Amino acid sequence: MTAPLLSGTPNCSPCTLFDPVPTPVTRELPASFAESLAAAAARVEVMLDTLLGEQLLADEVARPGRLIAAMRHAALGGGKRLRPFLLIEAARLFGRDDEGVLRAACALECVHCYSLVHDDLPAMDDDDIRRGRPTVHRAFDEATAILAGDALLTFAFDLLADPATDEDADLRAGLTLDIARASGLGGMVGGQMLDLLGSAVSSEEADIRCLQSMKTGALIRFATRAGARMGGGGDKDLASLTRFGEIAGLAFQLADDLLDVIGDADALGKATGKDAALGKATLVELHGVEWTQDTLSGLVAEADALLEPYGERADILRQTARFIAERRS
Amino acid sequence: MTAPLLSGTPNCSPCTLFDPVPTPVTRELPASFAESLAAAAARVEVMLDTLLGEQLLADEVARPGRLIAAMRHAALGGGKRLRPFLLIEAARLFGRDDEGVLRAACALECVHCYSLVHDDLPAMDDDDIRRGRPTVHRAFDEATAILAGDALLTFAFDLLADPATDEDADLRAGLTLDIARASGLGGMVGGQMLDLLGSAVSSEEADIRCLQSMKTGALIRFATRAGARMGGGGDKDLASLTRFGEIAGLAFQLADDLLDVIGDADALGKATGKDAALGKATLVELHGVEWTQDTLSGLVAEADALLEPYGERADILRQTARFIAERRS
Repeated sequence: MTAPLLSGTPNCSPCTLFDPVPTPVTRELPASFAESLAAAAARVEVMLDTLLGEQLLADEVARPGRLIAAMRHAALGGGKRLRPFLLIEAARLFGRDDEGVLRAACALECVHCYSLVHDDLPAMDDDDIRRGRPTVHRAFDEATAILAGDALLTFAFDLLADPATDEDADLRAGLTLDIARASGLGGMVGGQMLDLLGSAVSSEEADIRCLQSMKTGALIRFATRAGARMGGGGDKDLASLTRFGEIAGLAFQLADDLLDVIGDADALGKATGKDAALGKATLVELHGVEWTQDTLSGLVAEADALLEPYGERADILRQTARFIAERRS
Repeated sequence: MTAPLLSGTPNCSPCTLFDPVPTPVTRELPASFAESLAAAAARVEVMLDTLLGEQLLADEVARPGRLIAAMRHAALGGGKRLRPFLLIEAARLFGRDDEGVLRAACALECVHCYSLVHDDLPAMDDDDIRRGRPTVHRAFDEATAILAGDALLTFAFDLLADPATDEDADLRAGLTLDIARASGLGGMVGGQMLDLLGSAVSSEEADIRCLQSMKTGALIRFATRAGARMGGGGDKDLASLTRFGEIAGLAFQLADDLLDVIGDADALGKATGKDAALGKATLVELHGVEWTQDTLSGLVAEADALLEPYGERADILRQTARFIAERRS
C-alpha cells in the first residue's frame, strides 16, 4: 500500500523502434472547419472569461482574488478547446446552439483544466510549462494550484446544476451524474492514478486501453453524449453520439501516442519520445506505426458510418474525427 | 500576485491573553443524545464502507485499488460525523429517514473528508496526523492524496445526482448546486485560500467572520438546508433550518477557537494555542473568552427559539446546538 510511486526506470530507449518514420497521407480539411473550431474556442473563451470574471466579482460573497486569478490562469488563454467543441457540435447536430450549451461546454472545460493543474503539480508530473506559459503552481504556488483545481472542479458542477444551463432538472442532474462518473474514480482520476502507477501496471493491450479510456476517453465521450442530450436527441441518437465520442477518444489517444513517436517536437511544442523514456506502454509501441495509422483510418470510417443518417448536418463532426485522427500538433 | 504564502511570523506569543481561564457552566446533555450521535456516525460509517467498497469493486470498470484504499483511509474510521448528523436530523424533523438521506449525508461527508486530505498536504497545512492516524499523503504519498481528494469530491456529486438518492430530479439538481456553492470558490475552498493567505488579510471582525463562514460555516449550513429540503419542508422551514445551520456553523467555529485558547490539549488530542502561534486572528482573540461564551449562549438560545415551532420533535437538533457550543474536544 505504501510502495513509492514512479519507482520504475525507463525500460527501453526512446524512439528506436519506429525508424524510419513513414509519412501518412493527409487530406486537407476544409478551411471552414478550422474557422468553426476557432470560432467555438473564441466563444468558450469569452464565456469562461465572464463566468470566472465579472460574474464572480459582482456576487455579494467575498472572493479571494488570488484564487480567482489562479483559476483564470488555468482556464483562460489557450488550448484548442476540443472537448467543448465536441459538446457544442453534438448539440448543434440536433438543432440546439444557445447559451445553455455554451455553459455546459465551459463546465466540461473547467474539469479538463482542473485536471491539467493537478497533473502538473510537483507531486504528479512536475511540469513547469503548459501551453507556453508557466503552470499554475509555478505562476502562483502549490497550495494555490491545488485549491484552484479544486475550485474549478467544483465550479463545473455549479454550472451544470444551475437552472441557467437548462430548465429541465432531469437533464441537469443527468449531466452532473454523467460528468462525475466520467471524471472520478472510474474515469479520469482513476486513469491518472493508473498512469502514475506506471510500470507497476501491466503492458497488456486490454490494460492500456482501459487506462486510456479512463484517463482521456471518458471526458471526450461525455462531450458528445452531453451534446446529444442537450440537443434533445433520442435513445438511438444518444447511442450513436456516445459511440462517436468513444471513437474520438480512442483516435485522440492513438494520435497522441503516434505524435510522441513520429511527431515534430517543434510543431508540437513539447518533447517527443517521452512515453518511451518514461517506460509508458502505448498501443503504438505494442503494434507499431502502420497498425496505428490503419486503426486511425478505421476509426474515422466508423465515425463516418455512425454519422451517415445525419447527412450534411454532421459534416463538422465528421471533419472533427478526421482532425483528431490526423492532427500533427 | 506571486508573493509567497504564509510568509507572516507569529505576531503574539501563544495563550497569554486569556489566563486565568474561567470554567464555563455546562449542563449535562442527555445520554440519549450521545447515543443518537453515535448511532448516526455508525450508519454513516457502514454506508460509506459500502459505497467505497463492494459497490465500487463490483462495477465492471477497472478501479485502481491504491486510489480506493486512499479514499477509504480518508473517509472511514473516524470523526464525529457532525455534518452528516445535522443533515440526517434536519430531514428527520420533517419525518424522512431513509437510505436516500443517508446517501446525501455520505456525499456531504465525502466533501468534508476531501477538504481534510487536501488541507493536510505539505503545500498546505503539512499535517502528519489526522484523527490519530497518518494523514493520507503520509500513509500513501502526495500524488495519491491529491487524487484521492479529487475522487472523493467528484464522488460526492455522483452520489447527490444519482436517482438512488432521490427520485425528484429538481431536488437532486438543487442539492448539487447548493453543495457546489457551499464548497467552492465562494465557500469552503475560498475560505481555505483566505486562511492560507493568513496574515496578509485583515484582522477586522467582518473579515474574520467572512473567512469562517466560508471555510467552515458554508458546509454546515448546507447540512441543515439539505436535510430540510430532503424532508420536504416548506419555504419557512427551509429559512429556519438555513438559519439554524448558520448558527451551528458560527457556534462550531467559536467553540473551536475557544478550545484553542482554553482547551485541554490531552482531551482535544491536538496542541492548543495553535491559532495564536500562527498569528491567526479569531473572534476569541478580538473579544475575549467571556464575550465568546456569552455569544455562544446567545446562539444556543436563538437556535432554541428557531426550533420552538417544532416542539419535542426538534429535541435532538436543540441538543446538537448545545453540544456544538459546549463541546470540550
